[in-house]
Amino acid sequence: MAPLQSFIQVSPDSDFPIQNLPWGIFSTVHNPMPRPGVAIGDYVVDMNALAAAGLLEKHVPELGEKALHIFSQSTLNAFMSLGKPAWQATRRFLQRILSADEPLLRDNAALRQKVLVQLSSVQMHLPADIGDYTDFYASKEHATNVGIMFRGKENALMPNWTHLPVGYHGRASSVVVSGTDLRRPCGQRCPVKGQPPVFGASTRLDFELEMGFLVGTGNPLGKPISMHEADDCIFGVVLLNDWSARDIQAWEYVPLGPFLGKNFGTTISPWVVTMDALEPFRCSPPVQDPKPLSYLCDDKNSGYDIRLEVEVTPVGHDTPKTVCQSNLKYMYWTLKQQLVHHTVNGCNMRTGDLCGTGTISGPTEDSFGSMLELSWTGQKDVDVGSGTTRKFLEDGDQVNLVGYCQGPDYRIGFGPCRGKVLPALL
Amino acid sequence: MAPLQSFIQVSPDSDFPIQNLPWGIFSTVHNPMPRPGVAIGDYVVDMNALAAAGLLEKHVPELGEKALHIFSQSTLNAFMSLGKPAWQATRRFLQRILSADEPLLRDNAALRQKVLVQLSSVQMHLPADIGDYTDFYASKEHATNVGIMFRGKENALMPNWTHLPVGYHGRASSVVVSGTDLRRPCGQRCPVKGQPPVFGASTRLDFELEMGFLVGTGNPLGKPISMHEADDCIFGVVLLNDWSARDIQAWEYVPLGPFLGKNFGTTISPWVVTMDALEPFRCSPPVQDPKPLSYLCDDKNSGYDIRLEVEVTPVGHDTPKTVCQSNLKYMYWTLKQQLVHHTVNGCNMRTGDLCGTGTISGPTEDSFGSMLELSWTGQKDVDVGSGTTRKFLEDGDQVNLVGYCQGPDYRIGFGPCRGKVLPALL
Repeated sequence: MAPLQSFIQVSPDSDFPIQNLPWGIFSTVHNPMPRPGVAIGDYVVDMNALAAAGLLEKHVPELGEKALHIFSQSTLNAFMSLGKPAWQATRRFLQRILSADEPLLRDNAALRQKVLVQLSSVQMHLPADIGDYTDFYASKEHATNVGIMFRGKENALMPNWTHLPVGYHGRASSVVVSGTDLRRPCGQRCPVKGQPPVFGASTRLDFELEMGFLVGTGNPLGKPISMHEADDCIFGVVLLNDWSARDIQAWEYVPLGPFLGKNFGTTISPWVVTMDALEPFRCSPPVQDPKPLSYLCDDKNSGYDIRLEVEVTPVGHDTPKTVCQSNLKYMYWTLKQQLVHHTVNGCNMRTGDLCGTGTISGPTEDSFGSMLELSWTGQKDVDVGSGTTRKFLEDGDQVNLVGYCQGPDYRIGFGPCRGKVLPALL
Repeated sequence: MAPLQSFIQVSPDSDFPIQNLPWGIFSTVHNPMPRPGVAIGDYVVDMNALAAAGLLEKHVPELGEKALHIFSQSTLNAFMSLGKPAWQATRRFLQRILSADEPLLRDNAALRQKVLVQLSSVQMHLPADIGDYTDFYASKEHATNVGIMFRGKENALMPNWTHLPVGYHGRASSVVVSGTDLRRPCGQRCPVKGQPPVFGASTRLDFELEMGFLVGTGNPLGKPISMHEADDCIFGVVLLNDWSARDIQAWEYVPLGPFLGKNFGTTISPWVVTMDALEPFRCSPPVQDPKPLSYLCDDKNSGYDIRLEVEVTPVGHDTPKTVCQSNLKYMYWTLKQQLVHHTVNGCNMRTGDLCGTGTISGPTEDSFGSMLELSWTGQKDVDVGSGTTRKFLEDGDQVNLVGYCQGPDYRIGFGPCRGKVLPALL
């Protein structure tokens, strides 16, 4: 079979070839209503316009007469709640009408005019109404690094770590979309152990390189999602920067976990890459030893080979510097294992819930996914380019996460996941 | 001034005199649309019917023409988002038309027929669309008790505890309304330290006696709520049972805090008692030593004298036994301090967000707010009446929380906050 080609020109290093077709919520100056769209090359397919043209109702029976209603929403929740057969049928239809061989859209200038919007002209919004946001701690390298720093080499990994994906609840209200600048948080920190804490702006502001998955279809309270159901529940994946104030976190986190050190902001990429687009990039996750309890056992290739980078642009400069290169394939606990574990006690997931992986660090020093690890808790300078170094982030610094799967002649990318540090309000 | 009296007969031990007027969401068989209501005696004032009769639009300018829209919602969020002046104006109007001296409703049988619904005929629903649920750990007695059990007497209170209200994010999706039965969770526990964990139903299922406040008006991301703003942000208070699986919790909670040991269910009372109703029951909170950092200092009487009890009805029996008597006034960190601390880093609160206090234990053994404490981690039998004892909860046991402020000739009560333990699905 010849490789899938679109009639829309897509350069080989674009994040959004016809093999990707990620979902997001966008608006334009001409139509400020936030609405669902699908990215291809330098365009966004306006799903509301496509539905209004009657094409989805006619050609995608899984959407049927609900199509226009679903694509008039300001989040993806209504679409995601339909389930995998509807996601896949819509994807097949979009791949068909965007392909080079299909005249329906290609040869209809008036329809193209309505349906294809220049990517450069859109404003992106949060893709989902996120009911609950959970953050896991699923990278063994990250957990080991942080454990050594906080508790010493002997107690780095807690006894539970290799038996379950450790996770905690995060804050849904402060999840923001790429491009939202975040204010440096104030809070309590304890600079001298044994002395009283002081109040002020965090002096150890950090990023965390993560990915997150959005729940498409959930489960009722009391009924867990099993391993064989989990694949069908996950709609897609985003990049996620779990901004962290390490000094606030270190003082507050015992015994109930991170709170104000994290909940001042979490940035996600606006484009949700579907599990179908990622399917060719499945790989084996790291060997799990000891073998997990049976409810967590997963025979399939449930890892994903997604290349990840963090770029820092230091304040006063324009050139981003890649400070870390990692990969989702390093992650010990898979997305499916995270979802299954989360619900094994009956906890209910709802459409739009977000689960972060935790920082994805690799085995080498240049693959560590946070300044905390790169600077080894502030002991080492990290080169951020332009002749500048950092231990943690300074006001005005910009952070961008990059992620893509590299195919033979295309890449499945995520678009930007960026934010700038604004000075604290004091 | 003569005490406020309603034309509706209210017995002195009713939870809902005219001084209370708590808010909830109810439906009836005849009108299954969930809608806002206000409890008085054995009746519910149907706020949708009152708005439809044009009375709110006419008499409460703070609601104005929005009244019918606001009281056609299936949650209190729209009303709560209006802010304190609107809450207070509506309360004043309700107290007026329900008073014994005012003929408007008293003498209009047709209107009474529309507006007053028998409390015994209603089904209650969750009062709010809860965006985020946070649980604090604000009782010194509880934190000390649990600290001794988990970490020994020397490390019972962590160094941060007296400097800030320790809190963590809970799960919003599994907050349920009183009367919802909950399934015993399954999960990993580690019965023998140093040995691998096992999977199964929790054997140490517990309640936690808490209260929770609902945020009425919140703050934008990056802009903290100050102590002098906090009073106006809190809409009201509910009873809250933070069901806990102690064995799951003990194994999973290091280092990121409680997760599956808690998120299988949290029960709240359906009636939200407003801060105005609680105003006469303000009292001094415990002395805070050391003095908190200035952003947390609170000059006012910000404690509340609310009597609290836990009733357990053991499976196979009908008689509830009070196993604990406590009081909100024992709580070290006040509701306002919890809210102010939560936002000091810029974390945004939204209308409907729920903050639990953590278990409210008092100084004496009969005032401990959990089976964990009452049975001292399973070492002692707790008398649950009917000739029966418990260390933790058994399948079929029912738990109910009771709360009220005792006035001179009335009480401000919360109604039930109950749930039954269903057997695990295995």
